[in-house]
Amino acid sequence: MKKILVLGAGRSTPFLIHYLLEHAAAEDWSVTVGDREREQAENLLGGHPRGRAIRFEVDRLDEHRGELAAADVVVNLLPPNFQPIIAHYCLEQRRSMVSASYRNHRIGELEAEASRRGLLLLTEVGLDPGIDLMSAMELIDRIHADGGVVETFASYGSGVPAPESATAPIRYAVTWNPRNVVMAGENGAQYLRDGTVKILPWHRMFQETWTVEVDGIGPMEAYPNRDSLVYRDSFGLREAHTLVRGTLRYPGWGEVWQQLVRLGLPNEQFTIPGLKERSFRELVEIFLPDDGGSCRSVEARVAGFLHLSPTGHIMDTLRWLGLFSDQRIGGADETPAAALGELLKSRLVLPEGGRDMIILQHQLGVRYPEQGDRRERITSTFVAKGEPGGMTAMARSVGLPLALAVRLLLRGELTVTGCPLPTEPQIYRPLLEQMAAEGVEFKEKVESL
Amino acid sequence: MKKILVLGAGRSTPFLIHYLLEHAAAEDWSVTVGDREREQAENLLGGHPRGRAIRFEVDRLDEHRGELAAADVVVNLLPPNFQPIIAHYCLEQRRSMVSASYRNHRIGELEAEASRRGLLLLTEVGLDPGIDLMSAMELIDRIHADGGVVETFASYGSGVPAPESATAPIRYAVTWNPRNVVMAGENGAQYLRDGTVKILPWHRMFQETWTVEVDGIGPMEAYPNRDSLVYRDSFGLREAHTLVRGTLRYPGWGEVWQQLVRLGLPNEQFTIPGLKERSFRELVEIFLPDDGGSCRSVEARVAGFLHLSPTGHIMDTLRWLGLFSDQRIGGADETPAAALGELLKSRLVLPEGGRDMIILQHQLGVRYPEQGDRRERITSTFVAKGEPGGMTAMARSVGLPLALAVRLLLRGELTVTGCPLPTEPQIYRPLLEQMAAEGVEFKEKVESL
Repeated sequence: MKKILVLGAGRSTPFLIHYLLEHAAAEDWSVTVGDREREQAENLLGGHPRGRAIRFEVDRLDEHRGELAAADVVVNLLPPNFQPIIAHYCLEQRRSMVSASYRNHRIGELEAEASRRGLLLLTEVGLDPGIDLMSAMELIDRIHADGGVVETFASYGSGVPAPESATAPIRYAVTWNPRNVVMAGENGAQYLRDGTVKILPWHRMFQETWTVEVDGIGPMEAYPNRDSLVYRDSFGLREAHTLVRGTLRYPGWGEVWQQLVRLGLPNEQFTIPGLKERSFRELVEIFLPDDGGSCRSVEARVAGFLHLSPTGHIMDTLRWLGLFSDQRIGGADETPAAALGELLKSRLVLPEGGRDMIILQHQLGVRYPEQGDRRERITSTFVAKGEPGGMTAMARSVGLPLALAVRLLLRGELTVTGCPLPTEPQIYRPLLEQMAAEGVEFKEKVESL
Repeated sequence: MKKILVLGAGRSTPFLIHYLLEHAAAEDWSVTVGDREREQAENLLGGHPRGRAIRFEVDRLDEHRGELAAADVVVNLLPPNFQPIIAHYCLEQRRSMVSASYRNHRIGELEAEASRRGLLLLTEVGLDPGIDLMSAMELIDRIHADGGVVETFASYGSGVPAPESATAPIRYAVTWNPRNVVMAGENGAQYLRDGTVKILPWHRMFQETWTVEVDGIGPMEAYPNRDSLVYRDSFGLREAHTLVRGTLRYPGWGEVWQQLVRLGLPNEQFTIPGLKERSFRELVEIFLPDDGGSCRSVEARVAGFLHLSPTGHIMDTLRWLGLFSDQRIGGADETPAAALGELLKSRLVLPEGGRDMIILQHQLGVRYPEQGDRRERITSTFVAKGEPGGMTAMARSVGLPLALAVRLLLRGELTVTGCPLPTEPQIYRPLLEQMAAEGVEFKEKVESL
């Protein structure tokens, strides 16, 4: 019997564990799930005979050495900052590790040792990063093999409500950690457009959006995401004069969210004493300039300060969100960002029986020099929707590549060692093949230009 | 003979070492200065018979244990992030440590152990933090002893050219690490005004400035600095309804610097490939929105994007700074912030024979309930100017409190142990007394209200 140890029982695990247990008998697996909250792990296992829940604490790793040593493979779903320490212990106990988080720069230091010991420390095998990287790399490798030159490359990711579930005025729902929405863009973005490097700071990010058409869904709104220049190396795209990675939202998100960024509300730097007991209106007032003691309402002052129509759509949406309400903030942390997270969680919910939706889309402009400089635009799109009222598309899309990587490893069909990204053909080929068998497939559209 | 070990030979050390050597014979001291660049330490010692330079590398602390053990006191002037590790080694070798940096939150963990061993790990004994904390605390303790209630407290710090040396259009000169100017305000600021918490995000920081009058200098411009709410605890000021710490510049700095922040230029997040070889004009273009291929100059596009008069004072100053020039950026790091630092260093220099100036000012509004609610405004100001063409006021003001703390410690006149801040009376009283003897004195102005 092969033993799988899953660390963390958070939002990204339900599908992964479901899948592993479903195949446990056929593959002769046992699945141990470790979490700081043992009950949370137990709930996910639902009493399955091949499942076992344990209490697992990162600051007591020394005591958990036995569990690591007993496992055949470790799936690490703990918060990203623990990646290096978990990888270190896996190496020590001679166990391979897979993870859905971005590869920490300190993982590279373990490369030589992992290879020497024949181990694989595989990161970025979730949805984004994960499926996005593998599908893009497969496409680019195919184009290069055909003699094509990738002149422009744009890659978008998105987790939003499915169209019929996007009922909130702002057409968004929080189905994941709200912090990711609240602090999105905080470090700005860098990308390449027409051969020119562009940098967009946070306070301009949501006002310089553009439209991206998604087949079957309609127009979406994009804003750039982190450092797109890394694609030059990770995808071998030195030739491209345009490189953009972006996030998609339904149109209209940016013009509303931009106002909160202008005010400065998404802020994790400062703790406001007694914030839990204050109202959202009081929170907003903290970010308004002094008013010289006039009696204008917070709402009127926000509209004035931001030069918004007091009765227009944007102010209407902010009002609907509850930004000017007397509602007590509550929650645990007393930072403005945490308060905003509480507000979004309470207002931006999926309707009953609603479902989420995942979009990944790559748009490439390709030239074929050996075919008379023929040009084409290739659009490769993956859309997945969750089960109404059930498993989210997000959990499934993050968990499936992880589960399949585990299966390949345990079957001995993934023989790469070291600390690679899934952009290696020996990794993305078998993984994409197995994902296609599970219904995860990109639709390709090719247009001549 | 008592042995002093100074770690770091950077910008904050010249006066400190000069002072220690000057008193070395009388006090029977020897002074060892350790730096990664041994020659830099040697230069500062100038062959003094009681001085000794050593190569000191933080990542080889194990090899330096002997030097720590041989010292009677350690002055730590290494970059702030090394504070905990140096403190740890000092504790291990049973040596007291003094430092001019902000106290790292991890230092608190050493409190019990330091006290038990009779050691002092004293941080924040420079200028700001340092002299500002001690002088404010002394004043507040005096007011409280007189039965006064501090209703408003504002504390300002500044390092600028002396008025006759402020010849650049923007009236500033870089005499310290330019990074501190470039990234100033990056985390925003929190303060308390009329009982209301206020938070100002970075992108609004330099457009919501206010005027502060400094006797003998004239009006200065203030912007808020970090988290002023910490003063409630560090100064025991639970009673105050207004608490602001701020930075002073000559008027007009903010409206110019604000434009660079709006563009997004102060950015350490992204490395721009080949930035060294580009010009400043090309750097600015990276932060401009797409122009749809028009032929307008970068300069015209900046004025248009920021809604500035193309021929007005702000654009004039940006032009004078060299922001639109063909000058090659050069330097070492390829982040936009590093490039800005290079520009400031080359353009904002003291004129020949010029000198810098330090300003510290506390403004307090005080009520005396036992004296018929009498109210007064107390303004306490310290202004120091550097030697024309020589030692900066900054180096002197950072180094003097450190040197005096070392002397008090070695004479056995500082008997506090643990990890206190210099707001403790047993620390600020002897230190301020000795500083007064060296000419560092605040001028107090009291006005009845």
